[in-house]
Amino acid sequence: MGDQLIVLKLGGSVITDKKREFVARNDTISRIMKEIGASRVNRLIIVHGGGSYGHPLAKQYRLSEGHRNQTQILGLVKTRQSMMDLNKILLDSAIKNHLPCVSVQPSAFIRTKGGRIEEVNLEIIKSLLDLHAIPLMFGDVVLDSQLGFTILSGDQLTARLAIELCASQIVLATDVDGVFDSDPKENPKASLIARMTGQDLGELAGEDEKDARTIDVTGKMIGKMREVIPAVQKGVRVIVLNGLVDGRISAALRGGGTLGTVIEDGA
Amino acid sequence: MGDQLIVLKLGGSVITDKKREFVARNDTISRIMKEIGASRVNRLIIVHGGGSYGHPLAKQYRLSEGHRNQTQILGLVKTRQSMMDLNKILLDSAIKNHLPCVSVQPSAFIRTKGGRIEEVNLEIIKSLLDLHAIPLMFGDVVLDSQLGFTILSGDQLTARLAIELCASQIVLATDVDGVFDSDPKENPKASLIARMTGQDLGELAGEDEKDARTIDVTGKMIGKMREVIPAVQKGVRVIVLNGLVDGRISAALRGGGTLGTVIEDGA
Repeated sequence: MGDQLIVLKLGGSVITDKKREFVARNDTISRIMKEIGASRVNRLIIVHGGGSYGHPLAKQYRLSEGHRNQTQILGLVKTRQSMMDLNKILLDSAIKNHLPCVSVQPSAFIRTKGGRIEEVNLEIIKSLLDLHAIPLMFGDVVLDSQLGFTILSGDQLTARLAIELCASQIVLATDVDGVFDSDPKENPKASLIARMTGQDLGELAGEDEKDARTIDVTGKMIGKMREVIPAVQKGVRVIVLNGLVDGRISAALRGGGTLGTVIEDGA
Repeated sequence: MGDQLIVLKLGGSVITDKKREFVARNDTISRIMKEIGASRVNRLIIVHGGGSYGHPLAKQYRLSEGHRNQTQILGLVKTRQSMMDLNKILLDSAIKNHLPCVSVQPSAFIRTKGGRIEEVNLEIIKSLLDLHAIPLMFGDVVLDSQLGFTILSGDQLTARLAIELCASQIVLATDVDGVFDSDPKENPKASLIARMTGQDLGELAGEDEKDARTIDVTGKMIGKMREVIPAVQKGVRVIVLNGLVDGRISAALRGGGTLGTVIEDGA
C-alpha cells in the first residue's frame, strides 16, 4: 500500500467480551497486533471502541445525552478512566508485539458541538505518522459546546481522521463478516453484501431505520454505515470485516481480498 | 480559597521511589489524594512528574536532545507508555478517594519549539474546571517543531497553566522541606529560606549555576525556580514544600501556613 494511510477501527465487540463488563479479549488483541505487525503497513492509525469498558458506564450515566446533573460528572470520570484502562491493554499488547504505538487521547484535543466533531487540529497526528509511529486512539467522552460533554464514537473519529488525513482506506473490524441484507445474528439466511457503492450508502442514509430494507439496519451496522458515508464520498475505500477471524485484518491491511464488504464511491 | 485556581505539582521524587525503576509510592499517593479531598479546593489542576517511570528511559534514549535516530522512536514509545502507567496509578488512587479527576494527556495537544511550549489551547482544561472536574496532567514526551520531539517537564507545564489560567497559587510538592541556601541532602547545616521575592528569583536566573551562592543550586531546585519565575512575576504565589510529610499539602491547599518556602512578587 506504499505511503498511503490506513485507518483501522477495532470494534468494541472485537476487543472486549460485550457480555461481561470490563473483560478484554486479550488473546484476540494480541493476535490482531501480530497481524498488524506482519502486514507492514507504513502509515497506520488504530482507533478502538469501548465495548464492555465503555457502553455500560455510558448508558448508566446517560452520557450521550450530555451534562444534565452533577452525578453525570462521576460518569464522565469513570468512563474516561475505563477507556484509559482499555487503551492501556491495547497499548501494552502493541508494544509487546513491537508496534511503535503511542496513545493519543481524543478528549485532550477534540471537542464536539451537538455530538459532532467541529474543527480539529491534527498536526500532532500528522507529525507522529511522519515519525513512523502508530497513533492509537479510541472512542472517548469529550467536551461538547452544546451538551457539556458527550460520547465521541470510534466510528465518527475514524471517518473524520480518514477524511482530514486523506486516507486511502478504512478497515472496520467488527464481530460479523461484513454488511448483510438482514441481521446475521437473528436470521440464518442473511446474505453478505460483497460490494456497495457510496450511492447505496447515500440512499440508505436518507431512509428511516424501519424503512431501510436493503441492508441490515438492526444492530449497529446502520450507524457505522452512516458515519462512513462522507469518507466514501471523498474517495476513501471502506472494508467491513470480521476481526474475530484470524487473517482477515492482515489481508485487508495488505490490500488483498478477504471475506467482507467493500464500499467504494461509484464502484 | 474560594474560586481561585490552584495548580498542584507532585514531584516525581514524591510519588515514585527514584532509586528503583517503575516503583510508585502507592501509600504516599493515596495519602496525598486524601489530603486533596480533605482540603476541599474548588478549582484544582494536578500535574505530576515522572520520577523513576520517566527519567531513566528519557535518559537512556536521550529524549531531551530531540529526534536524532530511529532508535529514539522506541524511547518515545516506551516513555509515553510508562508515563501513562504512572498516570493511571494516580488516576485510580484519585478516583478511589472520590476525587473527580480526569486525565488529560499533554502530548495529545501541546507541542513545543526548542523545548518550550509555544501557543497552547486550554479551552478543554477551562471547561473541565467549570464542570468541577480536576484535570490530572503530567510531564510528557511531546512533539517539538525544531527537535522532532522532546521532554516537557511537569514544572514547565505547571508554570504555564498557572499563568494562562490566572491561578492564585502553585504548590510544588518535592522531597525536601523547601528551598535551602545549600543542598540539604549534602549539608546538614543548610538553612531553609522561608520567603523569597520574585526579584530574588530573577537575580538567580541571571547567574550561572556555579556562581549562585544564595540558594541551593545543586539538585534540581534551580531548574524549578527558573520555571516558576514568569508565574511569580504575573502575581502567582508559589509554595515549595515537602510532599512526603503528612499534612503539608493540605495546609497549603487550604491557604494556611506550613513549613516550606513561599515565593511572592515583591513580598
